[in-house]
Amino acid sequence: MKAVSAQDVIARCHAIAQCTETPGSITRTFLCESMHRCHELVFDWMQAADMAVRIDAIGNVRGVYAGSNESNRRLLIGSHLDTVPNAGAYDGVLGVVLGIALVERLQGKHLPFTIEVIGFSEEEGVRFGKPFLGSRALVGRIEGALDAEDAAGITVALAIQNFGLDPSKIGNALIADGAFGYLEFHIEQGPVLESIGQPLAVVEAIAGQSRFIFRFVGKANHAGTTPMRLRHDALAGAAEWITAVEAHARATEGMVATVGHIESKPGVGNIIPGEVRVWLEVRHARDDVRNAAVRVLIAKAQEIGQSRGLHVEHETRLQQPAVAMDSNLIAIAERAIARCGVDSYPMTSGAGHDAMIVAERIPSVMIFLRSPGGISHHPDEAVLPGDVELALQAGERFLEALAGMHHA
Amino acid sequence: MKAVSAQDVIARCHAIAQCTETPGSITRTFLCESMHRCHELVFDWMQAADMAVRIDAIGNVRGVYAGSNESNRRLLIGSHLDTVPNAGAYDGVLGVVLGIALVERLQGKHLPFTIEVIGFSEEEGVRFGKPFLGSRALVGRIEGALDAEDAAGITVALAIQNFGLDPSKIGNALIADGAFGYLEFHIEQGPVLESIGQPLAVVEAIAGQSRFIFRFVGKANHAGTTPMRLRHDALAGAAEWITAVEAHARATEGMVATVGHIESKPGVGNIIPGEVRVWLEVRHARDDVRNAAVRVLIAKAQEIGQSRGLHVEHETRLQQPAVAMDSNLIAIAERAIARCGVDSYPMTSGAGHDAMIVAERIPSVMIFLRSPGGISHHPDEAVLPGDVELALQAGERFLEALAGMHHA
Repeated sequence: MKAVSAQDVIARCHAIAQCTETPGSITRTFLCESMHRCHELVFDWMQAADMAVRIDAIGNVRGVYAGSNESNRRLLIGSHLDTVPNAGAYDGVLGVVLGIALVERLQGKHLPFTIEVIGFSEEEGVRFGKPFLGSRALVGRIEGALDAEDAAGITVALAIQNFGLDPSKIGNALIADGAFGYLEFHIEQGPVLESIGQPLAVVEAIAGQSRFIFRFVGKANHAGTTPMRLRHDALAGAAEWITAVEAHARATEGMVATVGHIESKPGVGNIIPGEVRVWLEVRHARDDVRNAAVRVLIAKAQEIGQSRGLHVEHETRLQQPAVAMDSNLIAIAERAIARCGVDSYPMTSGAGHDAMIVAERIPSVMIFLRSPGGISHHPDEAVLPGDVELALQAGERFLEALAGMHHA
Repeated sequence: MKAVSAQDVIARCHAIAQCTETPGSITRTFLCESMHRCHELVFDWMQAADMAVRIDAIGNVRGVYAGSNESNRRLLIGSHLDTVPNAGAYDGVLGVVLGIALVERLQGKHLPFTIEVIGFSEEEGVRFGKPFLGSRALVGRIEGALDAEDAAGITVALAIQNFGLDPSKIGNALIADGAFGYLEFHIEQGPVLESIGQPLAVVEAIAGQSRFIFRFVGKANHAGTTPMRLRHDALAGAAEWITAVEAHARATEGMVATVGHIESKPGVGNIIPGEVRVWLEVRHARDDVRNAAVRVLIAKAQEIGQSRGLHVEHETRLQQPAVAMDSNLIAIAERAIARCGVDSYPMTSGAGHDAMIVAERIPSVMIFLRSPGGISHHPDEAVLPGDVELALQAGERFLEALAGMHHA
């Protein structure tokens, strides 16, 4: 058997990219029609790699490669098969294809634990506005989501039925007993690795997030007849605060804070803005650091409001704690990358991933591959073949290290 | 004859307010049906004050109170009779009613010059999107506007015909030979006089205006995966600039600068803004000061763009020079106010007024009355009866001073 190459991995990602709801671009949402063809491809590759394959009740593809002994120890490797609209070819898919390729690279050798490669059916949250449906079924946190409806009024449960699956069997998606770890390869979806010239990174934590809507209320007034000293300009106040938000995030290692949306009323050139609403999002690997920053930014908004005679209020939209990756698996992944002759770069993932959900139940770790141009969720999304080869090699070293530990 | 009081003036403003296209609120646009009834009221008051009354071809009401001699010397006093939608009772109307009241307060005495009180038919620009149609006809700058269409596709010329006037006779609106000055009373429409506790102000200049659209172009990117140091956040750049705009205007005596409108793309909470458009408006009594500020603000935008890797461009939308009021008439008005026992406060008008147009042809001056709450273009627009009485007295002193000069 010829060893599967980085080019083979990339070619398979492009083969899956052909499974799309929108010919000419890549859109493959949860349990859509084109997901059937995607499953067929993954099935074929898994079966060719001597894996026992099934689709669980939430639509995850599960390929099991038996271990060399009778123990129930099991390593999970996976990522997701769904995409955003007009997506690239690698987000999610690459992690599934790399998992299969790592089994193939064993060339029939069996390790002292089972390997289960999982292609999660849903991570992006496009169809039902609820992300991570696939991995949530794995950790037993799916029931509450089965009643959610898509734009056509179809529930998750009905979508499962329409795809030919049985939502009453949702328990068959649960993580098997004996699973001791989860490994997810994923493109970085950001510019960090490219900016420092590194191909791979081990993810140490997935950042927590806080989201707020802030409202600055001043007084709309005539822009020609109201002197500067008598104004209560909501936009000038919001602008001062946006600048402070950026400065605080820049001064806090590992933090990102973003005002992604702003609206100003009445929005007329010759009227002083009377009311501005902005959306704030803050992310950091450590919840205490994030929460402290949020307190500072809320206090800063109030301080600016008081100094300008503005009423300032905020509404919390999301408080999502950070999720740590497993320190043992991080160490193993770092050594595996080092053995490939490249530096391992410790990173926080700013975006959420299936690993964030799976980590609720079993130790998990992620390895990021450099994203050329930092581009993701876009047709120009790419990977470098050399980076994919390094990911394969690092994965092999990772499996070897685990095999050594489970033999001992 | 009982002398007309401040309460009479206010009552007349409210009588005119009853002439409205929208029962329950005040809306009286150029040559609308309700303007006929408004004209009737003004006609009656003017004729009762021994004035010869006519409507000129643009729809201005013109009341002429003869002088005591054969000279053609003529003082114009006026303001406008049209309103914005959902207006107050005083913007414009007060200046016309005060003009008539000043003639009445002469109690039949004739001055060594003619007084012509003008109720301009159009100042706000609501119906045709072109302000100052009434005063533009006075200075001979109306022809180009006669083809403009309102929302119903009716031209200015046809609107004139429909109102019962003859657009071919537009020349009859021109300022009479011998006119040597124009006086306009107007509510301040801003908070300055109230904030300093002064009832009246003499306007020294009507501010010039510059309007621009600025575009900040950065790079939209994932708000979770793009570290602060690798961002090109168009909104953060625009916010820094908005703060700089405000600081520069605050530091420049008599300047107002306003960012009244902002839009940010893509406008999503978890995506770094890639493009922001803002509208800038700068006003000042001196064109050199305004133009210098504009150069500073453009340079500042470019500097911010360069430091952040943003492309910044701007488009000029309006460059309107400042209009100086006449220094002799200013001095006479200031002395007239001082003789009423109150301080005169020199002001720049941030808003445009008919005086700005009339000043193209003859020396002009304005007297502002304090606006309670700084409110205008709103049903809550008000004047204080005491301030109206002071305006009447100051107007009497103004006429006395001119009479003395023209006798001499």
